This record gives sequence, structure tokens and C-alpha cells, in this order.
Amino acid sequence: MRVLGVDPGLTRCGLGVVDGGRGREAGCVAVGVARSPAEDELASRLLAVGDEVERWMDLHQPQVVAIERVFSQHNVRTVMGTAQVSGVVALAAARRDLPVAFHTPSEVKAAISGSGRADKQQVTAMVTKILGLDAAPKPADAADALALAICHLWRAPMMDRLAQAEARAAELARNHRARLKQAQQAARAKTGGTKK
Amino acid sequence: MRVLGVDPGLTRCGLGVVDGGRGREAGCVAVGVARSPAEDELASRLLAVGDEVERWMDLHQPQVVAIERVFSQHNVRTVMGTAQVSGVVALAAARRDLPVAFHTPSEVKAAISGSGRADKQQVTAMVTKILGLDAAPKPADAADALALAICHLWRAPMMDRLAQAEARAAELARNHRARLKQAQQAARAKTGGTKK
Repeated sequence: MRVLGVDPGLTRCGLGVVDGGRGREAGCVAVGVARSPAEDELASRLLAVGDEVERWMDLHQPQVVAIERVFSQHNVRTVMGTAQVSGVVALAAARRDLPVAFHTPSEVKAAISGSGRADKQQVTAMVTKILGLDAAPKPADAADALALAICHLWRAPMMDRLAQAEARAAELARNHRARLKQAQQAARAKTGGTKK
Repeated sequence: MRVLGVDPGLTRCGLGVVDGGRGREAGCVAVGVARSPAEDELASRLLAVGDEVERWMDLHQPQVVAIERVFSQHNVRTVMGTAQVSGVVALAAARRDLPVAFHTPSEVKAAISGSGRADKQQVTAMVTKILGLDAAPKPADAADALALAICHLWRAPMMDRLAQAEARAAELARNHRARLKQAQQAARAKTGGTKK
């Protein structure tokens, strides 16, 4: 499976393409950032970043896009721009019929380093090691994008199993309710009752 | 000038097209909402709303798009979806070379009703009156979109004048600094000094 990881941002949008192998094997296909000038208007910045992300999708043909889920705990202005970029990226994926998954920063850290509280340096060091890179990917946004892609590779099978288990549990619950209703109707028919 | 006002949202995205006339005259061209099912995945919801907004752009050919500026004072989950929709709408406008303007809710309220703290009902009543509509536009998101479009019509000339004034002030400041520098260099040359 080939994953495009995206760390959304207006000034620097991290992009990382990773191929999954057997087990926990993962290979780096491409890594970089899409940029837009801070002095430009918001709409043209979204266009610049959006166009570059679409170019990456065309060039590297990912099968799924993993985007960092944005939280508003940071600077409000920055977060809004980040959320807008994440919307633009999700839309570009949906237009190409590519599935989109969102992972939180702590899910990414936990998947990569075993701890949801690992710092940026630890995550970058693990990404470099996992992908067998000669040097740490730079800037940090690019490393984060690779971390997201790896996180998705490793979490996706688990998420699929969870979704299947939930679907089966929901079906069992439905069957159970249907049987219960039948039993109640049968009991009412037997006693000749007309309770509502 | 024809303005498309957009009150961004995933469940209901308000859309209102208004034509400006002389002075404060304004006419309603179209009003409605783009919707997406809450149970769908985020990416396909963005696609549904984005496609409908683009259909409106094609159909009504606005010359400018006015979008409500999102603040994160509300529910975090809702705000993220709203910001993502606003990004998608701004991108669609940029792809069509349409200028995009953002106005805050209080700017809209102040423009329409004279008070930044007017409630929704007051704004809707004013929009109905300004546009000479037989009935108040529904739902509230649709009325908000019309209010945004009217706000832009009325604010745009003022914003243009402000931008021109700021540009002139910046030019004057640049000229002043250049003359100051020349005078300092001339003074240094006279005294034969070599101060850094």
C-alpha cells in the first residue's frame, strides 16, 4: 500500500509518500514540502498549496491519503489556515476517489515511537531509522508527513479489523432485537393480549 | 457588482447571491443551502458541499466571493469542519480567478444593522427589508449568506479606499526614509567620517 502523508500548513505543508512492505517494513518514495508566500492572499495561498499536493498525487499515485487531524489548542489564526489546507487536501483526494484518513499528532507519535508524548526529535529519529534514510528528513513538517504515512500503514489494518468487529457487533445487536421482538409478539399472541 | 456570500458549514452551507445597485440598493438573485449528510465521511462531505458551491458559481457567475471568517470560539469539532469548508470555497473561487474577501460575523452584523451585537432575528429582518423580500429567507444559514453578500457590497468600496490610503502612506514613508538616508550620507561625506 502506498500512502501520501500530509502535515497541513499554509507556509509549509509537509508531504511524504511511503510504500508499505511485509510486516513493519516501509520505504520512502518521496518527501518534501509545498509552500506558499506568507504575504499572498489566503485564497491564492490555498491554491498554491492545493496545486502542489495535486501534483504529488498525480506523480506518486498514492492509494490512500493520511492527514494530520487539526486541533485548535494552538494559535487561532494558524489553526484556521491549517484546517483550511486540510480541507483542500481532503477534497483533492475525494475528487480522485482516494480514501482519506485522519490521525491525531498523539496517534502518530504513539505509532512511531510507542509514546504519545514523544518529542519532535525522537519522532524524526524513528522515522529516519524505520525508513532506513541516510539523513533525517528536513524540515520538521516533511518528517511529520512521513511519520503520518507510516502511522497510517501500521494503524490501517487494525482500524479495518476494528471497523469489521463493530459492524459484526451491530449486526448481532440487530438480530438480537429482532428475535426479542418476535418472542414478545409470539407471547402476546398466545395470551391474546392487545398491549401496545 | 454581483457577490456570492457563503456562510461555510458541513451540514448546511448558506449560499446567497446579491446584485449591488446604486448607493445601498441591493437585489437578491438566489438564496439556498448546500448540504451534506452528517453520517458521511468528512472528505465526501467536503466534496458534496464543494461541488454544490461550484455549481452556484457556474450558474450565477459572481464577480467576488465573500466568506464568513471562522473563529474558534465555538465547539472545536464544528469549527474545524467550518474552516475546512471555507478553505474549499476559497480554493474554488481562486481557481476561477474570483477575488475572495473574508468578513467576521460582527462586521456583517455592524454593516447590516448598525450594531456588531445584533441577534440573528434582527439581521434576518434587515436582510429581508434591504432586499425587499416577501418573506424572511430560511434557514438561518441562507439568511446569513445574504447578509454576508450585502456586507461585502457595502464594505468593499470603503476597503478599497482604505487599501489605497495605506498604499499611499507606505509610499510616503518609503520616500521619507530614502531622503533621510541621503541626508545622513551627505552629512557624513561633509565631515569625512567613516562611522558605520
